[in-house]
Amino acid sequence: MRMYDLIMKKRNGGILTKEEICFMIDGYTKGTIPDYQMSAMMMAIYFVGMNEEETLHLTMAMANSGEILDLSEIKGIKVDKHSTGGVGDKTSLALTPMVAACGVKIAKMSGRGLGHTGGTIDKLESFDGFTTGISTKQFISNVNDIGISIMGQTKELAPADKLLYALRDVTATVDNMSLIASSIMSKKLAAGADAIVLDVKTGSGAFMKSEADAFALAKEMVMIGKNAGKKMMAVISDMDQPLGRAVGNALEVKEAIATLNGEGPEDFTELCMTLGSCMLLSAGVTESREQAEKMLKQVIDERTALQKLADFVKAQGGNSEMVYKPELLPKASIVTPLTAPEEGYINKIICDEVGICSLILGGGRETKESSIDLSVGIVLEKKAGDYVKKGETLAFIHANDEEKRKACEERLLAAYRISSEKKKKESVIKGILN
Amino acid sequence: MRMYDLIMKKRNGGILTKEEICFMIDGYTKGTIPDYQMSAMMMAIYFVGMNEEETLHLTMAMANSGEILDLSEIKGIKVDKHSTGGVGDKTSLALTPMVAACGVKIAKMSGRGLGHTGGTIDKLESFDGFTTGISTKQFISNVNDIGISIMGQTKELAPADKLLYALRDVTATVDNMSLIASSIMSKKLAAGADAIVLDVKTGSGAFMKSEADAFALAKEMVMIGKNAGKKMMAVISDMDQPLGRAVGNALEVKEAIATLNGEGPEDFTELCMTLGSCMLLSAGVTESREQAEKMLKQVIDERTALQKLADFVKAQGGNSEMVYKPELLPKASIVTPLTAPEEGYINKIICDEVGICSLILGGGRETKESSIDLSVGIVLEKKAGDYVKKGETLAFIHANDEEKRKACEERLLAAYRISSEKKKKESVIKGILN
Repeated sequence: MRMYDLIMKKRNGGILTKEEICFMIDGYTKGTIPDYQMSAMMMAIYFVGMNEEETLHLTMAMANSGEILDLSEIKGIKVDKHSTGGVGDKTSLALTPMVAACGVKIAKMSGRGLGHTGGTIDKLESFDGFTTGISTKQFISNVNDIGISIMGQTKELAPADKLLYALRDVTATVDNMSLIASSIMSKKLAAGADAIVLDVKTGSGAFMKSEADAFALAKEMVMIGKNAGKKMMAVISDMDQPLGRAVGNALEVKEAIATLNGEGPEDFTELCMTLGSCMLLSAGVTESREQAEKMLKQVIDERTALQKLADFVKAQGGNSEMVYKPELLPKASIVTPLTAPEEGYINKIICDEVGICSLILGGGRETKESSIDLSVGIVLEKKAGDYVKKGETLAFIHANDEEKRKACEERLLAAYRISSEKKKKESVIKGILN
Repeated sequence: MRMYDLIMKKRNGGILTKEEICFMIDGYTKGTIPDYQMSAMMMAIYFVGMNEEETLHLTMAMANSGEILDLSEIKGIKVDKHSTGGVGDKTSLALTPMVAACGVKIAKMSGRGLGHTGGTIDKLESFDGFTTGISTKQFISNVNDIGISIMGQTKELAPADKLLYALRDVTATVDNMSLIASSIMSKKLAAGADAIVLDVKTGSGAFMKSEADAFALAKEMVMIGKNAGKKMMAVISDMDQPLGRAVGNALEVKEAIATLNGEGPEDFTELCMTLGSCMLLSAGVTESREQAEKMLKQVIDERTALQKLADFVKAQGGNSEMVYKPELLPKASIVTPLTAPEEGYINKIICDEVGICSLILGGGRETKESSIDLSVGIVLEKKAGDYVKKGETLAFIHANDEEKRKACEERLLAAYRISSEKKKKESVIKGILN
């Protein structure tokens, strides 16, 4: 078999076989197939596409390129959750304790933030001493004991995907549905869970700008997972403006804690309830959405979810007192309001711009090596559809540096689009697939 | 400027500017743009295409990536000729002395053969002592003195094309009209002639299988050349069967000499007359096709073209006596006939197979390092459209090794397609563009 012939076949509209895809991924991982042939193949796939079988084979080949996490020592159905990412997306922080409190086992791998979107691990490090650098043994025993553990992604997980993604990233071959779906799903399959619930974002701040694309990606990933023998559900949710109100590491942790106290923002709470009920259904804990939501409401009302978060933080070395006293979390020294320059309806908050504002304040990484300021960020007081009077507070900026605060203020104001035209508030949930 | 953005632009159907194409070719030649980005770009171009301006800019950028041969010391209009290649294509050997004998200056760069197609330099080395390893100074003075000189391609000529072609060759991005045209034309433009006559082959033994594709490629190259300020003409000629009768280095030289004695095969003679008249027209020696053909006929009848070949061979160190006594050229030790197994019309001679037969006999290079046997080859006695009786000679095999001869015999027989169905003889000339 020669890579040249495979490129030619795909270029000419052919369908690659399982053996051909395995040969390609295996050779690329080993280094016997050079980057320049793989990038030509990726561009050919961009134009020609891959069918359902090819996409599945590619996903499996990448999942199998490294270690497949063995979670068999964890009793019960293990449910994983994946979000395609966005600004203010602190879902894992509130959702996983909620679901774990309902008896579902959560064994989750998370990543750090890069660019204007945050990462779950960075956010969790707002708890003094918290670490995701635990052994797989510790990870498994924590899940068995507490029902929840989060660890960093290991190098051994789907190494082919890491190599391929880095190549696609510099050759303009990222945005193909099959390639995106197989990249995400290869890591999820290698992470070993029995059921996977996907949160596919759509809107200006999401990778999938249109709802149609988000639904298509969700459908593709659900198909792959099912073909690989997993229970699958996908929620398509809004990322046309930041999720919830808080953007910034410790600020998002505070919002997650508030949500577990029943005081979270409406959109964020709704998303947690929807994703949570999908996770309970996938785990077979209950068979009705209504029952699932009732259970989730109960663990919030009774604070057992909050307790679960504290147990989880403690088990991974963190100061769990902060869960009950969020005022102990890292705090910025300068907090100033951003006020509305005119009256009207907020028609839009440019999502990515809010993420970039947090980055400017020091809350994100510009490069992999950057260190981040956990305390800074933005809390949006007004969101799309809200009416504001001139001078009313749109948001609070939490900063530690006056110069950065000013730069952020200017940019954040420009991210708000206020107009006399009335704007309808839209639901955060766009649809559910299974 | 970033290569990533250029790939994205082209991928999305955009048109690259002159500056962008120059940045890309310059960076690739210098090594600042990696192979993997360039191969993704080539695949994007394969799918999206390039317009007339882009193709011209790419050609000029590649031509300018190295030295442009300065032929200003040669008096008069310098005419170059390029063939897209095929089996039995010994055109340069007969054509250049014919045209030079009519007073046109021929300063030509040629290549060696690789695979089943031969190269002009290998063929010329059938003359004892002949060399193309001459200095540019010698080359120019030979053209001024004799009217004709042929040298090997220098490394400095269009280095970007060399790099790019090698990359396209392993990434299945060769067969795009704009890329093929710019690759050929960049070398031709760098070779410094004032007028270029192209011989674009079509048929089973040609790169362009269909006449439509051959015409399209010819049109594209003529367009590029004209935009670059050159006089351009293109002949589209048949390569559905080998050109002339002889395939093999010394055998082809003999056939070229026979043609200069007025005794060449009909198709080969016709092609030389047509290309020759285009060269005379391009050089401005005459303004009518009829007059040009008359002049070419005269230099054959009067043997001044043969004399020109002898002068040229001698000036480059070769034994010119062989021009007048072709029996002195390398000769194979075993010459056997291939006979027709049945009677009927020859409907087809699979062109590439005949080239491979010559390769089997030792007449070609399998790799760049192979040494070749100048004496071996095939002389076709019957060609497509001819009628043969059972046992009649189809071809003569010239070999130096009995085992290779047998292998060749078997394969050559399989290349002939004989049937009772009558087959019309077709003209070697399919069209002329200017």
